[in-house]
Amino acid sequence: MKNKLTIVKVGGAVVEDEAQLTQLLRDFIAIEGPKILVHGGGRRATKVAERLGIETKMVDGRRITDADMLEVVTMVYGGLVNKNIVARLQALGADAIGLTGADANILLSAKRPLKKGIDYGFVGDVKKANGSKIAHFIEANLIPVVAPLTHDGEGHMLNTNADTMASETAKAMAAAGFDVTLIFAFEKPGVLSNPDDDNSVIKSITHTDFEAYKADGTISGGMLPKIENALSAVDAGVKRVIITKATAIDGQHGTIISF
Amino acid sequence: MKNKLTIVKVGGAVVEDEAQLTQLLRDFIAIEGPKILVHGGGRRATKVAERLGIETKMVDGRRITDADMLEVVTMVYGGLVNKNIVARLQALGADAIGLTGADANILLSAKRPLKKGIDYGFVGDVKKANGSKIAHFIEANLIPVVAPLTHDGEGHMLNTNADTMASETAKAMAAAGFDVTLIFAFEKPGVLSNPDDDNSVIKSITHTDFEAYKADGTISGGMLPKIENALSAVDAGVKRVIITKATAIDGQHGTIISF
Repeated sequence: MKNKLTIVKVGGAVVEDEAQLTQLLRDFIAIEGPKILVHGGGRRATKVAERLGIETKMVDGRRITDADMLEVVTMVYGGLVNKNIVARLQALGADAIGLTGADANILLSAKRPLKKGIDYGFVGDVKKANGSKIAHFIEANLIPVVAPLTHDGEGHMLNTNADTMASETAKAMAAAGFDVTLIFAFEKPGVLSNPDDDNSVIKSITHTDFEAYKADGTISGGMLPKIENALSAVDAGVKRVIITKATAIDGQHGTIISF
Repeated sequence: MKNKLTIVKVGGAVVEDEAQLTQLLRDFIAIEGPKILVHGGGRRATKVAERLGIETKMVDGRRITDADMLEVVTMVYGGLVNKNIVARLQALGADAIGLTGADANILLSAKRPLKKGIDYGFVGDVKKANGSKIAHFIEANLIPVVAPLTHDGEGHMLNTNADTMASETAKAMAAAGFDVTLIFAFEKPGVLSNPDDDNSVIKSITHTDFEAYKADGTISGGMLPKIENALSAVDAGVKRVIITKATAIDGQHGTIISF
C-alpha cells in the first residue's frame, strides 16, 4: 500500500491574515499523515515593493518580475512569509522546514521565454521537481513548507507561481510512489455550478464531467485553467485534487477532481 | 575516528560583494568533507531598512531589533542573502540547503532580557542547538547554509548574531560526535600581535597563551571577546577555531585557537 501524502496550497490572502493563518495552520496540522504546505504571498510582496518604491506590474494575474521585484519576492516569499509560517508550525508542535526550489535542489526551473511578446522577467517554469529529495524530508518526519521560488541551476532564484509549485510537487511525489491528495485552498467552497451561490458546489469532476460542464457553460472563465491544471496532475498520477475553502481543508469538503 | 566537520562563518561584507562571495563559495566548496556555512548580512539589512524608511539603531555593534527591523532581517537574512547563497552553491554543484533556527527546530532561542537597561528587542539568545537534527542533513549529504535567525518556540522569529550562531552550532556538532573545525572568516589575516602589521599573525593561541597575551597587552579591544568566544567553543569540545581572512579559509592560514 502506498504512503498517503497530503499537499495543501494556500494563497496570499489567507497567509497574510493573522487569524486566518492561525486557523489554517491548526487545520493543516490536524490532517493525518505526512504533509506539505505550499504558500503564496503576492499581496505582501506587492506591499513591500510599494514601500520600496518598486512598481508592481501584472499581466493576466501574473507578476512581471524584474531584477528589483525578484529581490522583493525572494525576501518576502523565502524569508518573511516562509519563516513566519515555519516558526508558527514549530510553536504548534509540527516539525516544519522551510524550502524554496533551490534548497536541496528540490525544484529546478528555466527562465520563461517571451510568451506572446510578453517578457515575464525572472519567472521560472518548472523543469524538474525532485520527488525523492522531498521524500527524504518526509521520511525524516519533517513537514516541508514550500515558498513559490525556484532556481535555474545557474545561481539565480526565479519567481514561480504557487499553484504550479504545488501541482509539480504533487506530480513528483506521485511519481516517487506516494498516494497524493492535492488540496487547493481558496476563497470559495469549491467549484460552483452557479458562481453566485456558495451552496452550488460540484462534488466531483472527472475528465468526462469536465468536458460536459465546459460544453454547457457550467464551468467557464478563470476556473477553466484551475481545473485543467488539476486534471493534468491527476493524469500524472496524483490520486485526487480538491478545490476547497481555506477553512475546510479536511478532505471532506469542496470539489474532488479525480481520473 | 570521529567524522570531520568544518563550519565556516562569513560576515556581511563578503556576502554582499559579488566577486568576494564567488571566491568565498569556491574556496568553501574546496574544503574536504562535510561542511556548514553560517552567514551574516547586516549591511544589506541596513540598506533595505533605509529604503523602507526604518532607522537602524546599533548599541556596541549589536542591532536593536524592533518589530519592523525583525521583518527586515527575516526578509534579508532568511530570504535574500540565504537563498542567493544556496542558489549559487547549487550552481557550483554543492547540494546546499538554507536554514534558519526555526527550520527543523535546529536553533531555539529566548528573547533577550534587558541588559544594562538596554532593550535589544527581538533578539534571541540561543537556548539549544540541535546537533542531531543538523547531523541528519549532513548525513543526507546536504550542506546547511545557516542564516542568523532563530525562533523562540512560541511562533516568533528572533534575530541572532551570526558569530553566536556559528559557535553554538559548532558546540552542538562537537557534542553530536563530530571533529569540528570552526573558521571565522573576516577582513584580517588572523589575530595580529601588531594591529598595524598584517604579517604579525599569531599562529596559535591556547588558554595559557591568551592569559599571557592579555596580561602584556598584545591582545586587546574588540579581539578579546572574539577569542573568549573561540576558547569557550574549544572548552565545549570544538577541536579548533581558526580566525582568518575570508580569502584564506583552507585551514592552513590564520590563527588557530585550541585547548
